[in-house]
Amino acid sequence: MIEDALRQSLPANWDVPASLRESMDYSLMAGGKRLRPIMVIAAAEVLGGSLEATMPVAMAIEMVHTYSLVHDDLPAMDNDDYRRGKLTNHKVYGEAMAILAGDALLTHAFFSVAQAHKKFGVPAERVLAITEELSVLAGARGMVGGQAADMLGEQGLTKLEELTYIHTHKTSDLIVFSLRAGGHIAGATEAQLEALSEYGHALGLAFQIQDDILDLIGDETKLGKPVNSDVKQQKVTFPYFIGMEASEQKVLELTNQAKEALLRSSIPNPERLLQIADYLLKRDH
Amino acid sequence: MIEDALRQSLPANWDVPASLRESMDYSLMAGGKRLRPIMVIAAAEVLGGSLEATMPVAMAIEMVHTYSLVHDDLPAMDNDDYRRGKLTNHKVYGEAMAILAGDALLTHAFFSVAQAHKKFGVPAERVLAITEELSVLAGARGMVGGQAADMLGEQGLTKLEELTYIHTHKTSDLIVFSLRAGGHIAGATEAQLEALSEYGHALGLAFQIQDDILDLIGDETKLGKPVNSDVKQQKVTFPYFIGMEASEQKVLELTNQAKEALLRSSIPNPERLLQIADYLLKRDH
Repeated sequence: MIEDALRQSLPANWDVPASLRESMDYSLMAGGKRLRPIMVIAAAEVLGGSLEATMPVAMAIEMVHTYSLVHDDLPAMDNDDYRRGKLTNHKVYGEAMAILAGDALLTHAFFSVAQAHKKFGVPAERVLAITEELSVLAGARGMVGGQAADMLGEQGLTKLEELTYIHTHKTSDLIVFSLRAGGHIAGATEAQLEALSEYGHALGLAFQIQDDILDLIGDETKLGKPVNSDVKQQKVTFPYFIGMEASEQKVLELTNQAKEALLRSSIPNPERLLQIADYLLKRDH
Repeated sequence: MIEDALRQSLPANWDVPASLRESMDYSLMAGGKRLRPIMVIAAAEVLGGSLEATMPVAMAIEMVHTYSLVHDDLPAMDNDDYRRGKLTNHKVYGEAMAILAGDALLTHAFFSVAQAHKKFGVPAERVLAITEELSVLAGARGMVGGQAADMLGEQGLTKLEELTYIHTHKTSDLIVFSLRAGGHIAGATEAQLEALSEYGHALGLAFQIQDDILDLIGDETKLGKPVNSDVKQQKVTFPYFIGMEASEQKVLELTNQAKEALLRSSIPNPERLLQIADYLLKRDH
């Protein structure tokens, strides 16, 4: 459902330079777990909201995630040639076009959010709240701040707190956004939104620590990138600070913490979000 | 008024990596004509709207304009070392931080727009319309599309139509946005918004052709960049296609066309916007 919607999320009849359009499509359709759109939809589902109305926001968050990957891969940033087993955007379209495609995807995400009101009648007040939360959680105080700290930290992270800051903002913030956005669309109460935030915050951190672990021990063909690439790039990871076993323990703890936040809440039927937490705990890529 | 508001537009107490924050401030406070915020305010003024309520949107459009300059100046794009007589962002903060500061300014623009509702009570419907128009006019179909065409065109523009496409999207689109946004805040009718668009479209193109001319004949100290820099970079400009005299004539025609669009409309007192058109016609930098 998500793949189909993504394919249609950039209209065919756009009057746009062809290689800009191709560059945007290339990265948007390059696969991935689509975890963030799934979170938007699942959050609306557990609250009995309309799934159809979540789609513009689900598309938006995948556009934001995609733009962040395109920019992160640039030579001036992580300088990666491959992602998910495919050439990175700038290796195919050049650096200038990769920068512009990222800018355009980020900009279009806000267009997509607005369609929740225009096409599906979600009240303008709520859609504007979603817009505002996206700008905070994807911006300087959120994802971009995490990425900046990551860049600066490459000169030598010394504290686990710094790494936690990076993981929280680079990863958890967009997951928190996704869950709250699904909640807003379903008309969640403040307390329910708070529970979704807590779940997203813990699960996002668990997800990122799991990534650190998989990068050390995972299967290259499933990961789509070389195992130990973080070590080779001298990236400081959770296992570097607290060891492999304690890192695995931390993932388990955070996953339980995420699930408990939902079970304690007034969310009527959190089953789907509990399943997702368990699924992520067992993933191998 | 605009300089003061810009200085306060990024809150002092943000928990953000210091050099990201500095990099954002550096370019946002690097001067310039502030033409786009002026257009937002003036459009509300001619319609008798609240000036105070325009400020969040006026700040937003300057953030979008600033991010576009930061990214345009990057080595992979125009590779400029100076802008307005100051070192460009990436020359001071490095390429990675310049990319991220641009991303963060673009993202924060949408936060700023939302404050028109939250702080000044502009109806959510109208603010959402502004959000949507910003995403179109600053995105792939707007400014980013113009920039992409410009990049691609460096391999050799052959038609005046191509240059007009670039000027329209790189420059006119944000000016059209600014005017319509001011109109939305003041509660403009569809016909009034249409007149503002027509004015902005013509004036934006005139402004950009004027830029082409000034770059060939202007005063370096006023321009803040070397005269003839477009020629040295082998940039194709309006005078290149139709000559200097016809270009000057075109600026005059477009300025009159812009003014006439307002005079024909039901906008009660368009004086301020007429003055701005005349002022821009006579500028020397």
